[in-house]
Amino acid sequence: MKKEPGVSQRYGLKRAILSLGPSGFPFESFFARVLEYYGFKTTTGNKIRGKRIIHEVDIVAIKDKKWMIECKYHNEAGTITKLHPAMYTYARFLDLGKHHFDSPWLVTNTRCSEDAIEYAKGVGLRVTAWKFPKDENLEKLIEEKKLYPITILKNLSERVLNEIYQLKIVVAKDLLDFSPSELAKKTSLNEKDAVKVLEEVKIISA
Amino acid sequence: MKKEPGVSQRYGLKRAILSLGPSGFPFESFFARVLEYYGFKTTTGNKIRGKRIIHEVDIVAIKDKKWMIECKYHNEAGTITKLHPAMYTYARFLDLGKHHFDSPWLVTNTRCSEDAIEYAKGVGLRVTAWKFPKDENLEKLIEEKKLYPITILKNLSERVLNEIYQLKIVVAKDLLDFSPSELAKKTSLNEKDAVKVLEEVKIISA
Repeated sequence: MKKEPGVSQRYGLKRAILSLGPSGFPFESFFARVLEYYGFKTTTGNKIRGKRIIHEVDIVAIKDKKWMIECKYHNEAGTITKLHPAMYTYARFLDLGKHHFDSPWLVTNTRCSEDAIEYAKGVGLRVTAWKFPKDENLEKLIEEKKLYPITILKNLSERVLNEIYQLKIVVAKDLLDFSPSELAKKTSLNEKDAVKVLEEVKIISA
Repeated sequence: MKKEPGVSQRYGLKRAILSLGPSGFPFESFFARVLEYYGFKTTTGNKIRGKRIIHEVDIVAIKDKKWMIECKYHNEAGTITKLHPAMYTYARFLDLGKHHFDSPWLVTNTRCSEDAIEYAKGVGLRVTAWKFPKDENLEKLIEEKKLYPITILKNLSERVLNEIYQLKIVVAKDLLDFSPSELAKKTSLNEKDAVKVLEEVKIISA
C-alpha cells in the first residue's frame, strides 16, 4: 500500500514537467540537474561568442565530450517539436564551431516530429524527447533514477515551490539533503508540513 | 489632385502586406511575383529532398544563380524576425547541399533583429526584410516598380479578392492585363465596378 502514492505521482510526471514552465522554473535547470545525476558536469544560461554573434546556450554538458544543449520547452500538452528547432540547433552548433563543442544535443519535453528526428540523424544531432529515443528518453532518464521535478509534489503552494526553487532545488529528491527542521527554517513550511513533504519525497524517490 | 489616392494607397503598403495573411493569400506567391518583375524565374511550394528528409522550399528563384528562399511571414504588426529563422534557413540550405542551390535567402515582411542580420552576414545568408537592407529592401522592391499587393485595393470584398487570387493574381498591377469587361466576366464585379477597380490600379501603379 505504501507504494500507491508513489505510483500515482509518477503518472503525473508529464503534467509536472509541463507545470515547470508556468511556475517559472526553467526546464533547462531541471534537465541540467538530471544530467548531473548521470555524471555530466553542467552549466546553464551560457553566452558564447560565435562567428559574429553571441549565442545563448541553454546547457553546456561535459562527460567524455562537450555537448551544446538546446532545450525546447513547450508548456502545452499535445504540442510537438518540429523540424525548425532541430535545424537551428544544428546551425548554432556550426556557428560556435568545433573548437567550442564536440556535438549538438536537442532536448525537449514533448514528442518530436519524424522529419525532425530524421534530419537530426543526418547531421549527427542527438535528440532527447518525450519517449524518444527508445532508451534514454526524457521519461526514462527521469524514472530510472526517480528524478522527479519539485512540481510533482502535491499540496505545495506556489509560494513554497518558489522558496524551494530559491534554494536551487528543482529535482524533488534533492530535498532529502535537508532535515524537516532545516526545510522549515528555509521555507515558510511549518515543521509538521516539512515532515510530510519529505515523507512524500521519500516515497516517490524510493 | 489625381495623385492623391495613389499616395494614400501607398502609405497602406505595410498594412496591405499584413492583410495578405488573414485573407489566405500567401506572402510567398506575392514575393515570387515581385521577383519575376526583377527578372527572376521562380517556382513556389517546392518539395526537395535533402540528405534524409524532404524540405519545403518556399521559393526557388533563378537569376544568374539559384536561390533557396525561405519566407518568414508575420501577420501582426510590430513583430520582429529573430535569429531562429535565419539559423534554420541556413541549416536547410546546408542540408539541401550545394548541388541544389547556390545561395540561401531569407525574406520577411517585418524587421529583423540585429543578431539575425549579423548571423546572416557571417554565413552568407541574403536577407530581405522591411527596410533592410538599405537598398533593395522589401518596401523599396515594391515601391520601385509599384508592385502593390491586391489587398491594397480599397472597397474590394473578400469574395472579390478571392476571385482575383483564383486568377493567380496577387500583384495589383497584373490586373491591368484585363479589360473591365473581362474582369467583370471573371469575377462577381459588375462592369461599372470593374472600371473603378482598374482605374484605382492605374492610379497606384502609375
